[in-house]
Amino acid sequence: MLPSHARTGLCLLTMLASSMTRAFQRALPRVSRSAGALSRVLPRAAEESSIPRCHRSSTARLMSTTAESRADLSEEQKTELEGKIKDKGDAIRRMKDEGISKEDLAPHITELLDLKAQLDPSAAAPKPAKKNKQQQKSKKKQQTDDVESDYITPRAENYSKWYNDIIRVCELAETSPVRGCMVIKPWGMSLWDQVRNDLDARIKDHGAENAYFPLLIPKSFLSKEAEHVDGFAKECAVVTHHRLTADPSGEGGLIADPEAELEDPLIIRPTSETMIWNMFKKWIVSHRDLPLKMNQWANVMRWEMRTRPFLRTSEFLWQEGHTAHATAEGAIKDSKDMLDQYADMCEKLLAIPVVKGAKSPSERFAGAEETYTIEALMQNGWALQSGTSHFLGQSFGKAFDVTFQDSDGSQQMVWGTSWGVSTRLLGALIMTHSDDAGLVLPPRVAPVQVVVVPIPAKKNDEEGKAELENALDKLVADLKGSGLKVKVDDRDYVRNGAKYFEWERKGVPLRVELGPRDVKGGVCVFKYRVGSEGKETISLDEVAAKATAGLDSVQEFLLDSAKERLAGNLNLMATYDEMKDALEKDEASEYDGPGLYLVPWKCDAANEEKIKDECKATIRCYPTDVNEAGMHEGKKCFYSGEDATHMALFGRAF
Amino acid sequence: MLPSHARTGLCLLTMLASSMTRAFQRALPRVSRSAGALSRVLPRAAEESSIPRCHRSSTARLMSTTAESRADLSEEQKTELEGKIKDKGDAIRRMKDEGISKEDLAPHITELLDLKAQLDPSAAAPKPAKKNKQQQKSKKKQQTDDVESDYITPRAENYSKWYNDIIRVCELAETSPVRGCMVIKPWGMSLWDQVRNDLDARIKDHGAENAYFPLLIPKSFLSKEAEHVDGFAKECAVVTHHRLTADPSGEGGLIADPEAELEDPLIIRPTSETMIWNMFKKWIVSHRDLPLKMNQWANVMRWEMRTRPFLRTSEFLWQEGHTAHATAEGAIKDSKDMLDQYADMCEKLLAIPVVKGAKSPSERFAGAEETYTIEALMQNGWALQSGTSHFLGQSFGKAFDVTFQDSDGSQQMVWGTSWGVSTRLLGALIMTHSDDAGLVLPPRVAPVQVVVVPIPAKKNDEEGKAELENALDKLVADLKGSGLKVKVDDRDYVRNGAKYFEWERKGVPLRVELGPRDVKGGVCVFKYRVGSEGKETISLDEVAAKATAGLDSVQEFLLDSAKERLAGNLNLMATYDEMKDALEKDEASEYDGPGLYLVPWKCDAANEEKIKDECKATIRCYPTDVNEAGMHEGKKCFYSGEDATHMALFGRAF
Repeated sequence: MLPSHARTGLCLLTMLASSMTRAFQRALPRVSRSAGALSRVLPRAAEESSIPRCHRSSTARLMSTTAESRADLSEEQKTELEGKIKDKGDAIRRMKDEGISKEDLAPHITELLDLKAQLDPSAAAPKPAKKNKQQQKSKKKQQTDDVESDYITPRAENYSKWYNDIIRVCELAETSPVRGCMVIKPWGMSLWDQVRNDLDARIKDHGAENAYFPLLIPKSFLSKEAEHVDGFAKECAVVTHHRLTADPSGEGGLIADPEAELEDPLIIRPTSETMIWNMFKKWIVSHRDLPLKMNQWANVMRWEMRTRPFLRTSEFLWQEGHTAHATAEGAIKDSKDMLDQYADMCEKLLAIPVVKGAKSPSERFAGAEETYTIEALMQNGWALQSGTSHFLGQSFGKAFDVTFQDSDGSQQMVWGTSWGVSTRLLGALIMTHSDDAGLVLPPRVAPVQVVVVPIPAKKNDEEGKAELENALDKLVADLKGSGLKVKVDDRDYVRNGAKYFEWERKGVPLRVELGPRDVKGGVCVFKYRVGSEGKETISLDEVAAKATAGLDSVQEFLLDSAKERLAGNLNLMATYDEMKDALEKDEASEYDGPGLYLVPWKCDAANEEKIKDECKATIRCYPTDVNEAGMHEGKKCFYSGEDATHMALFGRAF
Repeated sequence: MLPSHARTGLCLLTMLASSMTRAFQRALPRVSRSAGALSRVLPRAAEESSIPRCHRSSTARLMSTTAESRADLSEEQKTELEGKIKDKGDAIRRMKDEGISKEDLAPHITELLDLKAQLDPSAAAPKPAKKNKQQQKSKKKQQTDDVESDYITPRAENYSKWYNDIIRVCELAETSPVRGCMVIKPWGMSLWDQVRNDLDARIKDHGAENAYFPLLIPKSFLSKEAEHVDGFAKECAVVTHHRLTADPSGEGGLIADPEAELEDPLIIRPTSETMIWNMFKKWIVSHRDLPLKMNQWANVMRWEMRTRPFLRTSEFLWQEGHTAHATAEGAIKDSKDMLDQYADMCEKLLAIPVVKGAKSPSERFAGAEETYTIEALMQNGWALQSGTSHFLGQSFGKAFDVTFQDSDGSQQMVWGTSWGVSTRLLGALIMTHSDDAGLVLPPRVAPVQVVVVPIPAKKNDEEGKAELENALDKLVADLKGSGLKVKVDDRDYVRNGAKYFEWERKGVPLRVELGPRDVKGGVCVFKYRVGSEGKETISLDEVAAKATAGLDSVQEFLLDSAKERLAGNLNLMATYDEMKDALEKDEASEYDGPGLYLVPWKCDAANEEKIKDECKATIRCYPTDVNEAGMHEGKKCFYSGEDATHMALFGRAF
């Protein structure tokens, strides 16, 4: 019988069984099972639709021509032009990749702009005389950048570049002028807000209350917990002055005012244990004050040298929970319960299966006795630590002298935990589901679940217009009435194809098209982002029910697919040499890497370090369920040959 | 006909009319109108209840005796002891206020502790032998602090102290070890979360999307907008290093690592115009990108020398909206619309009426062409600026070179706005409604709207216990089913009186008491925090409907009372000498000060400065409605005697 906290999250034991079976099924294509499951639950795709497939191969901006320009060209001419533009754009990208000089590239850019101008005359409108050279230059630069700005590198070509492209093209985030700090753009922010809403309710159910603690921490606080200071003093932003003043050198700039130097510098919180335990000391007097559970949603800062959007940035957003308990058991249970909540949230909301486990001693949080983690597998076979929960023992209780009077009148030292997840989860979300066409969002976390694209009636068809408008209103009301998040894209200056393309890229799970002919037939057209290839014709009476059921199926499909990938990437009983061969050559840029290795292991920090040097692999965790089931017992460590103390999950990680 | 944005918020013109009428009604007691209004809407109070009134005069901690200790004393003995404790506590506070030495105070403290020990023997339990001297000392200090920790200074005695007491005793916030930064405790945080939820929906309706911009700003950004740098460079936290290292002096401390000095120092954002306009430059190309509306919920920092919790702290939480427009008209409309949203939120959610207007040129935001403000009146007659919205003109557009291509192909400079409200609103909330007994919360913003206190059945009455439990479950389900936020306080170690006292202090609008006798009678007892004095007996069948209606009435009552106070504090057509006489003597600590002065005014920064020196009063705003109605026309400035350009609202302010 597994412990209760193994119920949520992925059960490795089950996976292992399926991993064995798989060896005998190599002939079967990998995604067949999931795809089969989906076709059972999703409504049957309509017969090959007469509506042409959207022009995936072209780019959104190229297709965003004005409504006016459409009138000048036939649909055929436009399609031909779009094809040429696409080919020219691809050629330019190739040349740029090959390092062509700006001079040699210029005529190709001109050619491309000419093609674009044919499609959309406004792009070649004569520039007003007033415009100065500087403006012209910057505008030109912008157009050149545009050419590559909506290109998504295929994963198989360069996984790292694909990741960055997705973030840029789908407008999730952008680098800022401050090293290592990102701007989270609205589409990315709304994903984080969804995570926040879901998790905030779980945290409250868990018994923690939200509070807010200062951004700045006296540097002396860091020194109080010996391990903590080692872990965090090395990479923090230090505030030393409280005023700027004019540079006396007379260059017109500003300098930190030497007269406004702080007596004791402050650091921007890298995490808030020290500040919060300093307050806990005041708040905790009696056993009746325990457990005390606090959470804050905040920004934190760790000065990172190598940053990647969402995965590792100097500033990031997170929630940090901090709890105080009368007993070690209470604290351990709290940290494990919260890990279960994280795992459940990942599965239910983000459709990301995770492996739960404990970190090896060398990977623990600075100041923790035990660090529990959820590890997710990314599409390239690397792991991503997606959330952690720490049993702090009495380390912070002792460092900040936090005691309580027990019911027998004796003074006792307090036990603690802390736990957090961050905007890093958005990196996990992207790298679990998205594809070469753009973002893929599980319906439950999608800021827009259904985008409705009305296809306008002809200019003189007043009756058709009115009918369409009525049908559209009713359709949207039906969908919203079922609690779905709906957006109507009725921009009149963007072509339908470009709209389809844009919302597919942004990962909206379901598109509904509604045109005058559909309205007359009492139907509309459904197209899912993933899970089924074709379009489906749906009766207008059934829209809400079908959309709800279909989105549920998509959610299930994405989770099933991710579970399948995780099971498929789990290498069991590999020798050390096999793992080394596979991992040392692996790079993040290589799509579909070697994955995770579950092996018998004798816990040993020195050997761990050696393996890291040799294979670039780390112990992601000692998975909870297989270790509790005693799977390592009687086995020898795959590295040292000594008696195994754990089953360890090794892998490359972001 | 008033412009549409005068519809929400308080209409000064209406107030002026009622202000005139009031002169003839001096004989009437001030609150009679509101009280009358409430008695019409609130259910009639029950006959004088047989349940004794809660012991307001005692303190929560003193009453939090253990269930065990209760058994030793009769109710009469306990009440007597509580009275003695209260008297001794009051005496000690008086002595402390008068500056008694610690030595002279010590015997009184001992006496008080002895009394407390009689009420609760565990307080005097022998200390375990292990406990060291340091611990004993700190515990003793804590107990001494406790004596004054739940005392609320009456407003009439010292308004400032009352404000600080409310914040401490109701556990809204606490000072932190970092100068000027506060810890927002859960009760305060849940109020801010309510404001955030309400306002976030309004901001989205307004068309703005949430995003997140970096905490740190390159100092060179500040210099780009000439006025902005003057306004914000003087009071900011400067980050100069990115690492701490061991102090080479060998004292074991940490210092900013000289080798990790930043080439270009960064400042912690005091506001984000510069960072956001730097991004707007990238994002705005065409007129189709406009209007662009962004909002972020964030922490900001301004190095304040004199701080007060919520009203003025170095770090505070806020939302900041930033919008870009193609035309000045579009930007002005946006900033006014958002001000209307703020005013409406204050009225509907927080029951705070506000005066809307424009700031005088010298009080404008650094870099704005016009600053719109909402000003609220606090109970002591002072004003509190509660939210601002700025029309930025093209100042940031020009500073960051943000242009767009108009539909005619020409390049145009972008217009801007910014707008924000902060945790300062919680200060406004406290000082608008609360009283000497503690916090008063309008039901719509209360984190707990109804607290249910079950009165336990006798120990052996198993049937009574079961009946009570069933009735309690149903009552809570009914209340929650009506969408009310309900908390059941079933702590068995706190006496009922102490519970009543605690929740009254925390401002919960409605308390429901339910005991075994009530259950048998099919009733429960309602007690509102404000609006009606007595308790009411309510049939259990009607609980949800009565509570909903009653809470609506309380919300209305609080808004009416605040409107009445604002009208009553509006001094019209005072001479300058009259205003000077009243205001120069006024101090924040004097409760019920002189209030606001609406006078004809010739806009003049030098005179404004003189008045500030002479009366400590500032122009809170040029109120929108009276100025649009041309009330100043044909009048002479009350200070200079020149032709008036505006009607100005003068007052002291926090």
